Amino acid sequence: MRFLIRMRFILPFLVGAFVAFLASIAYWRSNCQPITTKLKPRGAYTHAASSANASWQKIPCIINGNRRNPVDCRVEPSNEVFLPFSFIARYFEITGKIETDKKSLNAEKFFNWQHSYAKLILPKLPYESDGIFMSFDNYNVEVRDRVKCISAIEGVPVSSQWSTSGHVYPVQVAQFGLSHYSKNISEERPRHRLVANFERDFDFDVPRGSYAERIEDSEKELWVLNFSAPVNYTSPGIPIPFPDTGEPYVIFGVKFYRHGAISFHLEVQETERTTYELIYACGADTISTQGNRVIYGLGSCSEWNYLVRDVYVDLIKGLNLYYKKSSKKDKIRFNMARMRIQQAELHGRGLLDGLTLASSAHSELFEKAADWLVRSQDTVGGWPVTVKRKLGSVELEPPWYSAMAQGQAMSTLIRAYKRLKNHKYLQAAVKALDLFSKSSEAGGISAVFMNKFVWFEEYPTNPPSFVLNGFIYALLGLYDVKTVADGNDAERSGKLFDTGVESLKALLPLYDTGSGSVYDLRHFTLKGPPNLARWDYHSTHITQLQVMNSIHPDPVFADFAERWAQYMKGQRADHN
Amino acid sequence: MRFLIRMRFILPFLVGAFVAFLASIAYWRSNCQPITTKLKPRGAYTHAASSANASWQKIPCIINGNRRNPVDCRVEPSNEVFLPFSFIARYFEITGKIETDKKSLNAEKFFNWQHSYAKLILPKLPYESDGIFMSFDNYNVEVRDRVKCISAIEGVPVSSQWSTSGHVYPVQVAQFGLSHYSKNISEERPRHRLVANFERDFDFDVPRGSYAERIEDSEKELWVLNFSAPVNYTSPGIPIPFPDTGEPYVIFGVKFYRHGAISFHLEVQETERTTYELIYACGADTISTQGNRVIYGLGSCSEWNYLVRDVYVDLIKGLNLYYKKSSKKDKIRFNMARMRIQQAELHGRGLLDGLTLASSAHSELFEKAADWLVRSQDTVGGWPVTVKRKLGSVELEPPWYSAMAQGQAMSTLIRAYKRLKNHKYLQAAVKALDLFSKSSEAGGISAVFMNKFVWFEEYPTNPPSFVLNGFIYALLGLYDVKTVADGNDAERSGKLFDTGVESLKALLPLYDTGSGSVYDLRHFTLKGPPNLARWDYHSTHITQLQVMNSIHPDPVFADFAERWAQYMKGQRADHN
Repeated sequence: MRFLIRMRFILPFLVGAFVAFLASIAYWRSNCQPITTKLKPRGAYTHAASSANASWQKIPCIINGNRRNPVDCRVEPSNEVFLPFSFIARYFEITGKIETDKKSLNAEKFFNWQHSYAKLILPKLPYESDGIFMSFDNYNVEVRDRVKCISAIEGVPVSSQWSTSGHVYPVQVAQFGLSHYSKNISEERPRHRLVANFERDFDFDVPRGSYAERIEDSEKELWVLNFSAPVNYTSPGIPIPFPDTGEPYVIFGVKFYRHGAISFHLEVQETERTTYELIYACGADTISTQGNRVIYGLGSCSEWNYLVRDVYVDLIKGLNLYYKKSSKKDKIRFNMARMRIQQAELHGRGLLDGLTLASSAHSELFEKAADWLVRSQDTVGGWPVTVKRKLGSVELEPPWYSAMAQGQAMSTLIRAYKRLKNHKYLQAAVKALDLFSKSSEAGGISAVFMNKFVWFEEYPTNPPSFVLNGFIYALLGLYDVKTVADGNDAERSGKLFDTGVESLKALLPLYDTGSGSVYDLRHFTLKGPPNLARWDYHSTHITQLQVMNSIHPDPVFADFAERWAQYMKGQRADHN
Repeated sequence: MRFLIRMRFILPFLVGAFVAFLASIAYWRSNCQPITTKLKPRGAYTHAASSANASWQKIPCIINGNRRNPVDCRVEPSNEVFLPFSFIARYFEITGKIETDKKSLNAEKFFNWQHSYAKLILPKLPYESDGIFMSFDNYNVEVRDRVKCISAIEGVPVSSQWSTSGHVYPVQVAQFGLSHYSKNISEERPRHRLVANFERDFDFDVPRGSYAERIEDSEKELWVLNFSAPVNYTSPGIPIPFPDTGEPYVIFGVKFYRHGAISFHLEVQETERTTYELIYACGADTISTQGNRVIYGLGSCSEWNYLVRDVYVDLIKGLNLYYKKSSKKDKIRFNMARMRIQQAELHGRGLLDGLTLASSAHSELFEKAADWLVRSQDTVGGWPVTVKRKLGSVELEPPWYSAMAQGQAMSTLIRAYKRLKNHKYLQAAVKALDLFSKSSEAGGISAVFMNKFVWFEEYPTNPPSFVLNGFIYALLGLYDVKTVADGNDAERSGKLFDTGVESLKALLPLYDTGSGSVYDLRHFTLKGPPNLARWDYHSTHITQLQVMNSIHPDPVFADFAERWAQYMKGQRADHN
């Protein structure tokens, strides 16, 4: 009996327990995964075998004994430790981001690890003295931050590097010229669209109080517009309507009797629609901004001005100048969704020779750079830099010359000579050789490494700095002259080139860190730390060596270029 | 009633279910964690805030565009990507392992990331010519893999580097001497334990057929054991029982009439107990192994041999030789759990002068090295290296001299002179100066960097290799001589030292990669890749510069030492 009573209790108890047991299994199975607390012996798993659902735990990573700032890491049961990329990126200066594989069916994500943020762009080889310069067809000098604007007086960039007030930096002018020269070869031919042409009657209205007529210009021997309108560009002038196209370049000739301006009304569609006025006016002030007005000076404008302007660039340079002054942090980037020229407007008394829109104007801008170089060369054949330059603890007092400026100018001028067949360019290029024989100490650009190897100095510091990229640019300039000039000029440039090549071959190893390159040898002359080249300079070094190997084949150039390219993928030289 | 019956069933059922429910909670709580599958929106978490239970997914990491071998990474909902350390370790040559924080209450685990596998050991400063040499008190030359054994004939290491048959390498001898000299200063005084002393009667048994008696040795003027036993060490000899102590060194004098041997029976307790026989026998064969027998030759043994032997090292060097021949992959490491000398055994006819156990024998071993250097110096004051050395594509044909050998020998000899007051050591050190004035090309050790900076070559290759560490060791040797020698000798060594210091200060920057150092300048002379110094050489460079700054204070030495030490923690020089 007591057994039965006991059974009467135990049986339901067991049934209830069993039912609850089954329910709990069903519930937990679907909502949890086992914790593995025992650490498996090291090396028992390969790391790839761990499943994404495997449990993992936090583990602090103590970096080089720094217990104060542990990194928040993870460990999986296989004992594989995982480190956050945010730490790796900071520690090793690696870049990487999550991207979507567009080729995959499910748009799978992957993490794109890039050892170098810079891309290695192969130059077009063989190098030729009238061909694309290195990979400058990929350059866009005018959008660089350190280009303050393109001067409407000089037609070339004004640099804000080392001096915010701005100076025309010959290296930048030459690079501007060479990039447009190269793009003129590599890019498709420009599309032109005539806005106004005074060979026949014009069809825009001239407001009351203003005046306009076609006349034949004796100087230019063509028909131009003779106009008179209120000189002040806050009053309405003579409007010339524009077609709604995307071409950024306006090309025109203009000349004023004393004062005047030509302005362009630009409508920008971003979050809201804004109208700006871009004005080219008689006056010495290179660039100024007044609210929505950006004004470029034309200098004394009583001679014909032949203007080739990227209105997008001109506007944005002006606006950034304004935002900089008003301490707005972010500069406007060059990707405005939509910009439209509504109309041009003439002010003052003057002559206008046509008005054309163009998709690009590389040959015109190249010529502007070459002409500036001819015009600005001084009596010793140099292009003096007018601002102070600090290189670490060493200062260059202006004016100073740069072997890089000389070389890049020579490359520009030789191309201008080959293209435009005008001897003034060749003469200027040859004249630029003179400074190569003058030492830095004597105001020239030539230094010597340990009494043996001649170096042409981008920055002729004392002690010398032996900047690598500027030296190779100088060599390319010498090569261009030697290839195109005749007789004594060819011989002079040839000797300088050969001397420089010997130095380069001898000293190149000193720029190799085994995982990158150094920018210069200031660590040798100043006994300081090596000045490592950032990735974009490192990739420039590689491109330059590829070009050098094209014009002077040598295993040193080929081997170093190849190894240095591997460094950009994280390879290193062997250690012993 | 039916209610009561029902209750009688339901109540136990509910109680049972409740108990099982509680039990299941307790069980699962301790064995599982919730699965979270939903990904949180991008940027919703900072990575540190993500909980350890947040979901964790696989994501492939494409490394520098290599889609074929993606790395198996993880991503958390915060979009923080985690990379496996196994990849980082391979890519950047970083070391790290999971360790237990013994200070924490719960023995928490952490991951110990070490940029450099080498430890930077500060040398004892100021450096003194009779003090600890650099940080050599931490060296243990005899256990190095490239030390074949310690010769019982010469009393110094035999190197298997660059020649497996073995050669006495003067650099290794000097380092052996300097490390024991330094340990003799830094370590506690040795413990000695007399095993047999024949000033009084001995108490071990002489087996039938053998013979032993105390006699007074006229040469040594003390009582020794005159013995006669079967010469063949496979037959029983005269056993001398050993006390069961842990001391590894046996020190004794022995001399034989033609043939004979003294053997030591060693019992090793590892997974099983094994007995080995370590035999020092008359004969020219430096080391040989026959099964469990390791035999060291004593050379011609009819003169007194004064032996100071680490029986652990002697046994293991012999066994490794055997295992190497029998192509066993793993060498025996020097951490045998338990080794015990059971007894010594005398064979042949000869004399035995005492038998002592010692915990260390640094001063004796140092003296053996110094004496070898005096004995082995050739007529031009050098210690020729007798094996071929390949440095990249350049070969050194034997015999050749090494500025490092000269310098380290000088440091050893100067210390021997200061300690043992015997002029033969000083004379040998001074004689070693001669080769410093002889160029590598003429069979000496001196090279010149670009016609200007004199370098003392560890490897006098043609073209020069400019090895850094060997050069600084040479300078330290010159410093030691200049400090201790007099008159003309002091002047000669002083001039060489000063010349070398000027070269070092001038060229040191060329060894700086911005993240480590180069071992030599072969990349400059051979136009190849830089030969990066592995971390233990890099740390040697730092220690050497600290010592240089101690004896010749200069900001270059101090700054480079400090920056190079930072490189070991992952710091780099700035890029431009």
